[in-house]
Amino acid sequence: MKILIDAMSGDNAPLEILKGAEWAAREFKDHTIMLVGDENVISDIAVKNEINIAGMEIINAPSVITMEDSPLSVVRDKRDSSMGVGFKALSKGEVDAFVSAGNTGALITGATIIVRRIPGINRAAIASILPLSTPVLLMDSGANLTVTSDNICQFAFMGAKYMEKIYDIDRPKIGQLNNGTEYNKGNALQTESYQLLSECGLNFVGNVEAKEVPFGVCDVLVTDGFTGNILLKSVEGMGKFLMGTLKDVLKTNLVTKVSTLTMKEKIKDMKHRFDASEHGGAPLLGIQKPVIKAHGSSDAKAIKNAVRQAIFFVETGINNDITVFAADYDDKKLIADAEKAYQSGEI
Amino acid sequence: MKILIDAMSGDNAPLEILKGAEWAAREFKDHTIMLVGDENVISDIAVKNEINIAGMEIINAPSVITMEDSPLSVVRDKRDSSMGVGFKALSKGEVDAFVSAGNTGALITGATIIVRRIPGINRAAIASILPLSTPVLLMDSGANLTVTSDNICQFAFMGAKYMEKIYDIDRPKIGQLNNGTEYNKGNALQTESYQLLSECGLNFVGNVEAKEVPFGVCDVLVTDGFTGNILLKSVEGMGKFLMGTLKDVLKTNLVTKVSTLTMKEKIKDMKHRFDASEHGGAPLLGIQKPVIKAHGSSDAKAIKNAVRQAIFFVETGINNDITVFAADYDDKKLIADAEKAYQSGEI
Repeated sequence: MKILIDAMSGDNAPLEILKGAEWAAREFKDHTIMLVGDENVISDIAVKNEINIAGMEIINAPSVITMEDSPLSVVRDKRDSSMGVGFKALSKGEVDAFVSAGNTGALITGATIIVRRIPGINRAAIASILPLSTPVLLMDSGANLTVTSDNICQFAFMGAKYMEKIYDIDRPKIGQLNNGTEYNKGNALQTESYQLLSECGLNFVGNVEAKEVPFGVCDVLVTDGFTGNILLKSVEGMGKFLMGTLKDVLKTNLVTKVSTLTMKEKIKDMKHRFDASEHGGAPLLGIQKPVIKAHGSSDAKAIKNAVRQAIFFVETGINNDITVFAADYDDKKLIADAEKAYQSGEI
Repeated sequence: MKILIDAMSGDNAPLEILKGAEWAAREFKDHTIMLVGDENVISDIAVKNEINIAGMEIINAPSVITMEDSPLSVVRDKRDSSMGVGFKALSKGEVDAFVSAGNTGALITGATIIVRRIPGINRAAIASILPLSTPVLLMDSGANLTVTSDNICQFAFMGAKYMEKIYDIDRPKIGQLNNGTEYNKGNALQTESYQLLSECGLNFVGNVEAKEVPFGVCDVLVTDGFTGNILLKSVEGMGKFLMGTLKDVLKTNLVTKVSTLTMKEKIKDMKHRFDASEHGGAPLLGIQKPVIKAHGSSDAKAIKNAVRQAIFFVETGINNDITVFAADYDDKKLIADAEKAYQSGEI
């Protein structure tokens, strides 16, 4: 399997990305790690920092998409960027998966326009894992600011497939993020989606309030990308805030300092839980080939773990399942539309 | 000052509410605590549980609005409910403030229709304090699922006045909750509001991501009530989740158990911080008289603290400031509209 890493994108590129690539190549020996970016820069940084990327194939790409660039830059003036060239290689089948810590808007645009969505899927979503008492897959966590109930329903299906395949959960529980649990809560989007989700054959557990999310009430949480982004970042921020508060408490006196040593491992576990780099990245679900969005601030470990996710994604064949579902979903819609047209006398 | 408590509404009514009223009467001796609800039920419960409400004036109201009742019930079939009668007493000036742990929708409807908004204010908002490294006032945290940029701007002004008066903060920092910090982030609502907030003379610090909220970047956080509700409940849920995780860690071994004893006070502080009952309730800002929304699950302490908030609200005269601002805001809008009409030749 060939995993291509965008060497130039992200807050810590290229140094941390190259270190991550080296780490991934060492850890996943059965697979081929490749890089895309400016060959000269990559070689220079690797030599200066004694990073062993000897023998690693580099696809040359002279430019870089910055965080300030327009999402459309990847298909307009920066087609020759590491991200643009990376997507091209993925779409042509030269590599099996693509990992990038770059500009989220450009990543979604590139994935959608260059690699393309799975036929029948109307919107791709960023599928982020919330590291809570049980892992919760948040769909969408930021790709689509506005969505329809149809999109939400497809997010639920794709998320369910992901949790089945990657976390081995039988009939994952689907919840809709809402401001109350009653069926009629929220705006038109939420009430329409509630109806669709109730009828779609998934294990829909109803509306879920944000305060219940940490306690395992659902495995997949569906929402629009704006609200999802607020929840995702709130979980991240609160984790950081409370770890800081805990650190202060543990410094209270000599006894607590000593006791901190004895529970070192457990505290480390807690820290790891809220450390984004442990989770690597978030796949874009609904795209024809695996695209893993790594956190903008990814370090070497995050990149290595994002590569692991890409490998899992390919190995579990989750895209086959989504493709079958999408074709079926599309068929049902076409039939429903045709029936409507027939009843109204149009055909 | 006369503070009226809705004795019948909330998950723990009337028992905890009556205990809270007794507590408030003991703690705030300079003021008069009154109750509204079914006289017989109140007397019965008080006698059975040895709650001393002797001499406390009770306004009789035979029915109760439940959590399942429609928001409009307070002005339709349940005008004779504790909430409906309470609002009537407030609007007539028979009491100075009203505290209720009841149905949020009915509370907002009753406040808006019976007590009425301050002239010039287009929407009232629930002003909740997020208990983070510094207190953050969240406007709106659930009264209005959809809002306009004009509403957001008024939320910012009202929130700023509240933080000035109640928390003694000079020129409070106003942030807009968004999915990124750049000016053009979010949907049309956020970009329009960004523009208005930049021009309105407040100390606007720009867009704020949910992950930054815990770290004191702003004193007032403005957003629509749907998104605000998600954030509020996420902070609540994550606080609870992490306190639970901490408890597990501290049970690791004998040393940690001993050390837990030595930092008892600090852990208690942490717990208190995320304990909704410590904060009492959230005022509805933009209503002509003080209405304090207590948490649905309020216990005696929460009710006592909501009474304290009501007293502060009246004492600081915050509604006078909001009234002056709203009249001025309205004037400016009228003038701007007139200028537009003049320029277009309409007048």
